[in-house]
Amino acid sequence: MRFSKSAQKLRASAIRELMKLAADPTIISFAGGMPNNDLFPVQAIDEIYAGLSDSAKKTAFQYGPTEGFPALKESLKEYLRSRGLPVDTNKLLITTGAQQAMNLLAKVFIDEGDKVICEFPSFVGSLEAFNSYGAQNVGIPLDDEGINIAALREALAKGELPKLLYLIPYFQNPAGTIYSSKRKQEIIDLLKEFPDLILLEDDPYGELWFNEEDVPLTVPMKAITQDSSQICYVGSFAKILGPGFRIGYMLVPDEVYNKCELAKQSQDACTSTYTQVLADAYLRNNALKPYLEWLRPIYKRRAEIMLNALEVNMPKEVVWTTPKGGFFIWATLPEYMDADDVFQIAVKKGAAFVVGRAFDPEAKKNNAIRLAFSHTAENRIEEGIKIVADAVKQLLK
Amino acid sequence: MRFSKSAQKLRASAIRELMKLAADPTIISFAGGMPNNDLFPVQAIDEIYAGLSDSAKKTAFQYGPTEGFPALKESLKEYLRSRGLPVDTNKLLITTGAQQAMNLLAKVFIDEGDKVICEFPSFVGSLEAFNSYGAQNVGIPLDDEGINIAALREALAKGELPKLLYLIPYFQNPAGTIYSSKRKQEIIDLLKEFPDLILLEDDPYGELWFNEEDVPLTVPMKAITQDSSQICYVGSFAKILGPGFRIGYMLVPDEVYNKCELAKQSQDACTSTYTQVLADAYLRNNALKPYLEWLRPIYKRRAEIMLNALEVNMPKEVVWTTPKGGFFIWATLPEYMDADDVFQIAVKKGAAFVVGRAFDPEAKKNNAIRLAFSHTAENRIEEGIKIVADAVKQLLK
Repeated sequence: MRFSKSAQKLRASAIRELMKLAADPTIISFAGGMPNNDLFPVQAIDEIYAGLSDSAKKTAFQYGPTEGFPALKESLKEYLRSRGLPVDTNKLLITTGAQQAMNLLAKVFIDEGDKVICEFPSFVGSLEAFNSYGAQNVGIPLDDEGINIAALREALAKGELPKLLYLIPYFQNPAGTIYSSKRKQEIIDLLKEFPDLILLEDDPYGELWFNEEDVPLTVPMKAITQDSSQICYVGSFAKILGPGFRIGYMLVPDEVYNKCELAKQSQDACTSTYTQVLADAYLRNNALKPYLEWLRPIYKRRAEIMLNALEVNMPKEVVWTTPKGGFFIWATLPEYMDADDVFQIAVKKGAAFVVGRAFDPEAKKNNAIRLAFSHTAENRIEEGIKIVADAVKQLLK
Repeated sequence: MRFSKSAQKLRASAIRELMKLAADPTIISFAGGMPNNDLFPVQAIDEIYAGLSDSAKKTAFQYGPTEGFPALKESLKEYLRSRGLPVDTNKLLITTGAQQAMNLLAKVFIDEGDKVICEFPSFVGSLEAFNSYGAQNVGIPLDDEGINIAALREALAKGELPKLLYLIPYFQNPAGTIYSSKRKQEIIDLLKEFPDLILLEDDPYGELWFNEEDVPLTVPMKAITQDSSQICYVGSFAKILGPGFRIGYMLVPDEVYNKCELAKQSQDACTSTYTQVLADAYLRNNALKPYLEWLRPIYKRRAEIMLNALEVNMPKEVVWTTPKGGFFIWATLPEYMDADDVFQIAVKKGAAFVVGRAFDPEAKKNNAIRLAFSHTAENRIEEGIKIVADAVKQLLK
């Protein structure tokens, strides 16, 4: 086969194989960054489906505009406005999951060899989207307040300016970190200093805070700054409705919107009208708010159980993050330890997670693990963490 | 903005603007290559939704494998097997509409400047997908039996071998042509002569024949040849369920499947599980067969009405195809006439279509129009054709 140059570079990652293993139902899996099936708002959608007019259903079967189903664009703008986002000075493009938003932004910004600055660790799906256009991903460490600003400044000072700065500031995947208000302001100030730098602000988990007092921290930079023209904001329905709907979106300046809309035409013509009609009704029926109110304490409790289990079972050589929301805890192992070895032992005993290398923008460092508490029933979390901790203990020097 | 090189080349086509105009509900539009909203199997899906178990619904909300929802892959294989397709020696990848299948195949085969041989005329969405990876699309005229084989041989003989041969052999978009059995065998023979040539066989309309006697013509080349390893077959649920579900698929050799599955991971992670669960139940409940039996005579009648209206109203300088199925009639105007001029006159009087240039792989020739009969109610077709014919008459020299 005479494949294209870019296809020749496509390689199945070992990570995907590990994740398939982790999907085995007999295993207590902390691998999948997804809600548990029992947490979806099935009944709300049942009621919505029952209430759809015949004409709305017919519309759902039809093609829609590439930019998104008009009614959903309106209801989503209302929601984004309520979060302070500048929907009137930017444009909204509905995408087939946030993954497509990443891919489209990568397509319109990245040329072979271009640098993208990411957090270390960062989200594997976005790293793959950047890679698929030949990006060179560079990781800058996270600290407790967000991306380390001194290290970021240093990276910006040397060599060519990166095309994109990619951040997941709210309950980060995989680290669970939330940015401090100060760090967000430092990023905003940095954008003024580098007017050619584009910030890709990825926000799939912002609504999933555990404590009301943290809500101010979840205000996006796109909402804080007076001039949002350097920020491409990406959101998703995956965690506030269901990933199976494949609905994401980007709120971006005109020029970026125009390019991405054209690129989307040739990628999939439009996002499913069927799922967009349901998502629109979900927002209009005010089903989101009560769902989130029900959901937040469930995730909070799962996080607490996992944190307690880590405290009780993990050896002191391991450190981990304490999330204030979202799905994830990031545990750092001793420098000499390889997460693949931990995985092999743990999976045989019946517990799984994702190894750190998947989240290293440079795909090297592997002395960490991502533990998702979103997918595992409360009563299995402690048992699973004990298995993982035992595996770590076996490998201590 | 420092856009990528490929983004700098993205241009909004004037065609898209014309199509938006043609979507005006006060206009009798033959522009949209889509079913009419009244033709969708809404009731069948209502019944399916009502019959879904709670567990099936929860699955529908969740991520699925990139390659497709396993149950749908099985039921779709059964359907493809019934059409003679080699599902056991090839692999099936579910895509977000057939448009994504085209885009993925373009990504894995096309490098900047590569030649793709297409029919003249050909489908605009695929041409855009090829273009988005830098392809040079070359058009070879269709005759009554399919792509002109002598001209195709001539094109293959000169210069570098094209990466792809792209054909829509069954009720072609936009020409409505169906290939003769002889022409299909000639193409199959040609593939043996050029073992490095990949045939992209695009088949969204094959089920929409008007007369049972034509069914043998709809057997795909992928099903006819003993060795299907050079054929990438693409199909869609858009015309047999609804475009809003965004479900297409490719049946391709292992190597191609592996590359496309990796490319899809970074494009949208997976196709909507929600719509895949419904499509699977639609196939399993045997809802497709009765729907098609109901649908075929409706399209047949619309085609007849349009053909009669053309016969009565069009001046003798215009010639058109006589489709045996599908959605489209292709009318060729006198060489000197510009379809844009016809469009401008017709749209003011209340009728629309798509101008020929959209379907020219080289985006030049514009003395033709595509008339879709799929979307317009029977009782408006004659009135619309009269408006178009009057516009043509006004421009005759």
